[in-house]
Amino acid sequence: MLNVTVWNEYRHELSDEKVKNVYPKGIHEQLKSFLQEDFAVHTATLDAPEHGLNEAVLKETDVLIWWGHMAHDEVEDKIVARVHQRVLQGMGLVVLHSAHMSKIFMKLMGTSCDLKWREADEKCRLWNINPSHPIVEGVGEYIELEQEEMYGEHFDIPAPDELIFINWYQGGEVFRGGCTYRRGNGKIFYFQPGHESYPTYYHPEIQRVIKNAVKWCAPTSNQYPNYGHQEPLENIK
Amino acid sequence: MLNVTVWNEYRHELSDEKVKNVYPKGIHEQLKSFLQEDFAVHTATLDAPEHGLNEAVLKETDVLIWWGHMAHDEVEDKIVARVHQRVLQGMGLVVLHSAHMSKIFMKLMGTSCDLKWREADEKCRLWNINPSHPIVEGVGEYIELEQEEMYGEHFDIPAPDELIFINWYQGGEVFRGGCTYRRGNGKIFYFQPGHESYPTYYHPEIQRVIKNAVKWCAPTSNQYPNYGHQEPLENIK
Amino acid sequence: MLNVTVWNEYRHELSDEKVKNVYPKGIHEQLKSFLQEDFAVHTATLDAPEHGLNEAVLKETDVLIWWGHMAHDEVEDKIVARVHQRVLQGMGLVVLHSAHMSKIFMKLMGTSCDLKWREADEKCRLWNINPSHPIVEGVGEYIELEQEEMYGEHFDIPAPDELIFINWYQGGEVFRGGCTYRRGNGKIFYFQPGHESYPTYYHPEIQRVIKNAVKWCAPTSNQYPNYGHQEPLENIK
Amino acid sequence: MLNVTVWNEYRHELSDEKVKNVYPKGIHEQLKSFLQEDFAVHTATLDAPEHGLNEAVLKETDVLIWWGHMAHDEVEDKIVARVHQRVLQGMGLVVLHSAHMSKIFMKLMGTSCDLKWREADEKCRLWNINPSHPIVEGVGEYIELEQEEMYGEHFDIPAPDELIFINWYQGGEVFRGGCTYRRGNGKIFYFQPGHESYPTYYHPEIQRVIKNAVKWCAPTSNQYPNYGHQEPLENIK
Repeated sequence: MLNVTVWNEYRHELSDEKVKNVYPKGIHEQLKSFLQEDFAVHTATLDAPEHGLNEAVLKETDVLIWWGHMAHDEVEDKIVARVHQRVLQGMGLVVLHSAHMSKIFMKLMGTSCDLKWREADEKCRLWNINPSHPIVEGVGEYIELEQEEMYGEHFDIPAPDELIFINWYQGGEVFRGGCTYRRGNGKIFYFQPGHESYPTYYHPEIQRVIKNAVKWCAPTSNQYPNYGHQEPLENIK
Repeated sequence: MLNVTVWNEYRHELSDEKVKNVYPKGIHEQLKSFLQEDFAVHTATLDAPEHGLNEAVLKETDVLIWWGHMAHDEVEDKIVARVHQRVLQGMGLVVLHSAHMSKIFMKLMGTSCDLKWREADEKCRLWNINPSHPIVEGVGEYIELEQEEMYGEHFDIPAPDELIFINWYQGGEVFRGGCTYRRGNGKIFYFQPGHESYPTYYHPEIQRVIKNAVKWCAPTSNQYPNYGHQEPLENIK
Repeated sequence: MLNVTVWNEYRHELSDEKVKNVYPKGIHEQLKSFLQEDFAVHTATLDAPEHGLNEAVLKETDVLIWWGHMAHDEVEDKIVARVHQRVLQGMGLVVLHSAHMSKIFMKLMGTSCDLKWREADEKCRLWNINPSHPIVEGVGEYIELEQEEMYGEHFDIPAPDELIFINWYQGGEVFRGGCTYRRGNGKIFYFQPGHESYPTYYHPEIQRVIKNAVKWCAPTSNQYPNYGHQEPLENIK
Repeated sequence: MLNVTVWNEYRHELSDEKVKNVYPKGIHEQLKSFLQEDFAVHTATLDAPEHGLNEAVLKETDVLIWWGHMAHDEVEDKIVARVHQRVLQGMGLVVLHSAHMSKIFMKLMGTSCDLKWREADEKCRLWNINPSHPIVEGVGEYIELEQEEMYGEHFDIPAPDELIFINWYQGGEVFRGGCTYRRGNGKIFYFQPGHESYPTYYHPEIQRVIKNAVKWCAPTSNQYPNYGHQEPLENIK
């Protein structure tokens, strides 16, 4: 059984009544509630020692899920470097919503990861444009969310290895809302939905995508490759 | 359990003593011998009625494996169109070695699929450049074949969706020897090794890659998308 | 100066009053009118001998532009094969709007190239998601068309080598509306706008994109690579 | 005329007799000597104030070329951040040889950028696998270097947007030796050749590739996109 660690900043839910009403135990607990149907799930939050991500926890983690927003800067660079190293070694990473500007995602992407945004209670429709991909196993032509924060292009990311979802917004924008990347020995999935004041993580199809993404991101048994000086494999004299 | 159909031209093995000695029951039987450890395997050959690929067989097939060389032109266009349609609907396709110029691969690629070649009993080393990909699960840094036919660049294919292996040849050439493609609802893997006069398909790591490829190519449960006229999802007046 | 051949089916404009009013001399003449500011432009239509695409014309053509819709099937396979061969040798190809189901585009793509569609006089906004690409030189964040035919996902194409535009539609759909491909020695750009009953090809930014695309698709001086038997470059004994 | 800044660490040439003999005025001066045939060329080195890369220099630079090796760590983070920002805004970047582990390349890639290596005076052959790309304009099927340092896979980079060259080495390895990337509004080309003790930058075909790369990396006139809060473009009430 895959070991999943759900990391959540866990600040909005403590300070904002509206958010608390949607996620009374925190976004991490809601993510855990459905992920534990299929996986062994552990949670970690910003305010725990080492943000809950000490060496032992990361070593055990097959796939890490990341939700953050208002306190990206409070995540210590030392921990970011540790997570980065683990991704390169093979740990999967699912980056949710506003974590597009988390230190770890920006470090892995190499770009600003900036975008346009708007909170206007508008409709979002995620079109599945990669129907043979395991991340959309069991997902139909599109997923409709009655209310989601608008994230709009240009989204300053590297061209994804695979584009899975394109989002349509009522207000006139589009967004690359589901993107895969391989970095080192690790696999990464960015998924747009999940503004803290909407009940997005209660939506069954959103849950299905996140579960599929965990499976897709899971490490293979392969070791991180060797680097450095290499003797010739052939006689070169 | 996945249903795999192994399609083989089955001509070299009947007409050429050297090949017969390597694959006395045909290449398809050797492929079947290890694939049946993990899958339900069926075989089909060029000289069977409808080349062994009638509607019922294809409907039942999750992943089709294709080996052909000297008789590409004898494969009927009607059957090629049928296989093509099934790939677009979701059937996986593993294209081996000289099948790079099979009608079905050329039809799916849209290019000449031509390349340089040489039979000179030379060494080939396949470098794994995509270590997190499930197709190389359990495969090390490279696979070494003491003797394989040289296939050299330029290989006239679309840039692969994912490049998995790059081949090194003793004679001085390189080749994109493991390539994935998605077409319609189907997944395709092209894999270079398998010249008929060498015992390539007895090599355990080559077998492992082909097994991994079958799993990767397997269809999802998703239906082929609907096309045609569409009523608006939003009020546009 | 680049030699551009504009190919147009030229049927709607002769049979449909509404279309005739928009393009009285045919879509090809409107395309020519602005392309000739920068290029040497020749036109060709379906009903000319060899569809206006004899060997000499194609040999001289650096970039071919293709618009077709109601008579895709009347394009002779022999001419399609000739155009296909020229693309592989290096001729650029700009595929406009309903030519997504032209024989030449389908042959180059290897998929059905099917999609969803709707004529409802609705707004279309093309978002520029690849700002450093020469095809969007001088183009802003998006291009807005007051009325365009809706083309919706899933669009059954290979994942583009580069995705340039994503279209938003008032009715709730999105579309990969600007896509580049390399096939053989040739470059291809698919561009969605241009329904025959709307004045899309009079729009300055649409004209700019088509001009940029011609420049991007232009052949290099490189010859189509050699294929076939190859002597070793290194001593392999 | 494009403004090119050639940045060179300029340490090996001062401390190592063998290197001094190959590049008596420094690698930057040799790069400048042929680049100035087509471009306005400026040079900058590590030991100049701000490494020669103050705000004014970078603002004027269309394309920056980077060669570094033994002193990557001495490049100040502040300057790296400045260069990074300029790339995202549109400045082109050509990364040569051992600059694969420069801070700026690692920051843009998000991976370790590590590889295998060997100095053994062995032959390297760079196969052109993307014949329609402007970076290989005028380049034949391959470029042969009598002696080059071996760089071998696995190369820990993101899958390139476009793979241009694959290197063959006498000792049995392969390498993705020419890779393009788009990051933000900027274009990047990594090119493997150029070990300091071999006369690689005197080779006419290597010079041609670097010139082509400068042209390909040149910025468009487009501004870096706007980010942040966005009012709806459509009425969403």
